[in-house]
Amino acid sequence: MRPQDIIRKKRDGGELSREEIEFFVRGVTTGGVADYQSTALLMAILLNGMTDAEQSLLTHAMLRSGDILDFSDIPKPKADKHSTGGVGDKTSLLIAPLAAAAGICVPMISGRGLGHTGGTLDKLESIPGYRVNLSLPEFRTALHKCGFAMNGQTAEIAPADRKLYALRDATATVEAIPLIVASIISKKGAAGLEAMVIDVKTGSGAFMREYDRAQELAHALVRTGSSLGVKSQALITDMNQPLGEAVGNSIEVLECIELLRGEISEGARPVLDLSIELAARMVLLVQLELSIEAARERIKKVYDSGAALECFRRNVETQGGDPSVCDQPRQILPLTDKTFKVESPRPGFVAAIDAEEIGNAIAEAGGGRVRVEDSIDPTIGFMANVKIGDEMKEAEVIGVVYCDDSARGQRAAARIAAAYKLSEAPLPARPELIKEVID
Amino acid sequence: MRPQDIIRKKRDGGELSREEIEFFVRGVTTGGVADYQSTALLMAILLNGMTDAEQSLLTHAMLRSGDILDFSDIPKPKADKHSTGGVGDKTSLLIAPLAAAAGICVPMISGRGLGHTGGTLDKLESIPGYRVNLSLPEFRTALHKCGFAMNGQTAEIAPADRKLYALRDATATVEAIPLIVASIISKKGAAGLEAMVIDVKTGSGAFMREYDRAQELAHALVRTGSSLGVKSQALITDMNQPLGEAVGNSIEVLECIELLRGEISEGARPVLDLSIELAARMVLLVQLELSIEAARERIKKVYDSGAALECFRRNVETQGGDPSVCDQPRQILPLTDKTFKVESPRPGFVAAIDAEEIGNAIAEAGGGRVRVEDSIDPTIGFMANVKIGDEMKEAEVIGVVYCDDSARGQRAAARIAAAYKLSEAPLPARPELIKEVID
Repeated sequence: MRPQDIIRKKRDGGELSREEIEFFVRGVTTGGVADYQSTALLMAILLNGMTDAEQSLLTHAMLRSGDILDFSDIPKPKADKHSTGGVGDKTSLLIAPLAAAAGICVPMISGRGLGHTGGTLDKLESIPGYRVNLSLPEFRTALHKCGFAMNGQTAEIAPADRKLYALRDATATVEAIPLIVASIISKKGAAGLEAMVIDVKTGSGAFMREYDRAQELAHALVRTGSSLGVKSQALITDMNQPLGEAVGNSIEVLECIELLRGEISEGARPVLDLSIELAARMVLLVQLELSIEAARERIKKVYDSGAALECFRRNVETQGGDPSVCDQPRQILPLTDKTFKVESPRPGFVAAIDAEEIGNAIAEAGGGRVRVEDSIDPTIGFMANVKIGDEMKEAEVIGVVYCDDSARGQRAAARIAAAYKLSEAPLPARPELIKEVID
Repeated sequence: MRPQDIIRKKRDGGELSREEIEFFVRGVTTGGVADYQSTALLMAILLNGMTDAEQSLLTHAMLRSGDILDFSDIPKPKADKHSTGGVGDKTSLLIAPLAAAAGICVPMISGRGLGHTGGTLDKLESIPGYRVNLSLPEFRTALHKCGFAMNGQTAEIAPADRKLYALRDATATVEAIPLIVASIISKKGAAGLEAMVIDVKTGSGAFMREYDRAQELAHALVRTGSSLGVKSQALITDMNQPLGEAVGNSIEVLECIELLRGEISEGARPVLDLSIELAARMVLLVQLELSIEAARERIKKVYDSGAALECFRRNVETQGGDPSVCDQPRQILPLTDKTFKVESPRPGFVAAIDAEEIGNAIAEAGGGRVRVEDSIDPTIGFMANVKIGDEMKEAEVIGVVYCDDSARGQRAAARIAAAYKLSEAPLPARPELIKEVID
């Protein structure tokens, strides 16, 4: 078998066999297939697609390219949430403690931010001392102690995915649905999950801007997850505006801790609502409760009682962070008080928000990564005061950019101001947060 | 500008700008674009195509990626022939001396064999001592002395093409028409030609098996060549059976020298006919004659007079080869007398020949390259006795495989026997050698 014959087959629209897919993934892992061959195949997959059978075989081969974690010594159901990424999407930081406090073991393997979207690992590292590079034994210990642990992808987990992901970013092949699905599910499967809930974002700040593409991805994720024995459910949720108020790293962690502490601002409420719903779906999938209503009640209970906050505190301590961040987040988190106002140029109703542009503006200012190798300043961010449908007066404050550097802060504020589209007439309706549930 | 943004644009079916194409080609040449990015773009080009404008810009950028040879000190028109490759296609060895003897300067940059097709350089190296790695000054000297010179692509000529060609072979992106065109024309343009004739093969032994694909390629070659100021004409010619009788290296050179010597067997006649026609087209394009009839006469004259043979002899001597190969080719060329008969399994008429299979069988036996890094045994080859339309008796000899190794020779003979398809009824007509002329 030769790599170019496999590439040719996919190039010509053929269906790859199990042997061909396994040969390719093994070659990616061992180096027997050159990077320049991998990327030609990735582009052919992007343009010609994959059948369900190929999709499942690819995911399985990538899952098996490394170790499969075994947490069977932890006597709890194992489940996780995955989001396809958006702007201000910080639900992982709430869902993990909510689900863990409700009795689920959550071995969460997360990623870094890139482009307009932030990454859970970057956000967590805003907490002084917090480590996201746990060894496998440390990860296991944290799971035992706290019910959840949050870590980067280790070398042992789906190494073929690590390799391919880096190549996809450099070759404009990130958006291929079969590759997205294989990347997500292979990592989740290798983490030994029995169930997962997937938050597929759609709208101006999502990878899948178009609703039908989001549906396509959601269905493919659920089908492939299920075919590999992981109970899967997907929710298509709104990403036409930042989720909550905070966009950045420190300030997103701040928003999450305040929510866990019960300090709920109106603008941040959607973060809590979505987190409770997604955590409840996890509870239902692993059958800790038998109805979605009971599952929601279970999650709300651990939220109201403060059990989730305590779970988060224990995790911060276990992963090396300063647990007093849970008591005095504004004192402990790295923040700046140098701000740049984003003002409404004229009166009107907020008709649309280019959330991707907001994410890109913050990334360019230094609060995210334009390129993989960029480093992040956790203090940089944006707090949005208004949402789609809100009425604005002239020169009313849309939000505030936080940035120590004047030139960069001003530039970000100007870009963000232009991302808000006003109309003269009020909108018929505000976007619904949860649009569809797909099993 | 980032490579991935260029890849994304082509991936989504967009038209690349001059700046984007030049950025990419410069990056390929200097290493600023990684190989794995180049191949993703190559696959996107293969699947999404290029406009005429992009095609011309790509070719021009590749042509300018290295030196442009200047033979203005040679007071003759400069022209060349290029073939898209086939089985037994050895016309370069005749056309170069025919055209040179007729007054054209022919700076021929040729290639190696790969897969089912042979390469002019490999064939020439069958002549003891013959060098195809001339330095630029040596190449120039040979052109002055003999009117033609035959050489490999030097590092100075179209380095972007050298790089991309190697990647295309390993990634199943050889067949993309825009890439084929850019590769051919960039090299020809860099060799300082004012005219070129392109022999586009179609049929079972051609890269373009389908007639409409061959037409598409021929039109693209002529359009692109003309857009860069090189007068271009293409002939679509038959490659449904080996051209002439010999397939291999030494035995193809032998066939050519015997033809130059006037020793014309019936089976080899199409090689001579096609060579005369292509050389005459070169004469017409550079306006050494003003009608195709006069051009053919001019070529036939240098053939009949032995001037072309003398021109070939001078070239062999100048390029370091043993010129007595022109007098005693069977004694000088490396040949083997170990043969394996290919016999007809039953009576019938030859209805079709899988010429690609013949080429592959000889390559696998060691007479060609299955992989780029393979070395070639010049003695291995196949002599075909019959052509499409011929009537065969049972066990009549179709041809003979030459190979010193019994196992490999037998295997090649068996593969070749299966490549001949017999029918019970005679064919209505034999394939025409020259199918179409495209300006």
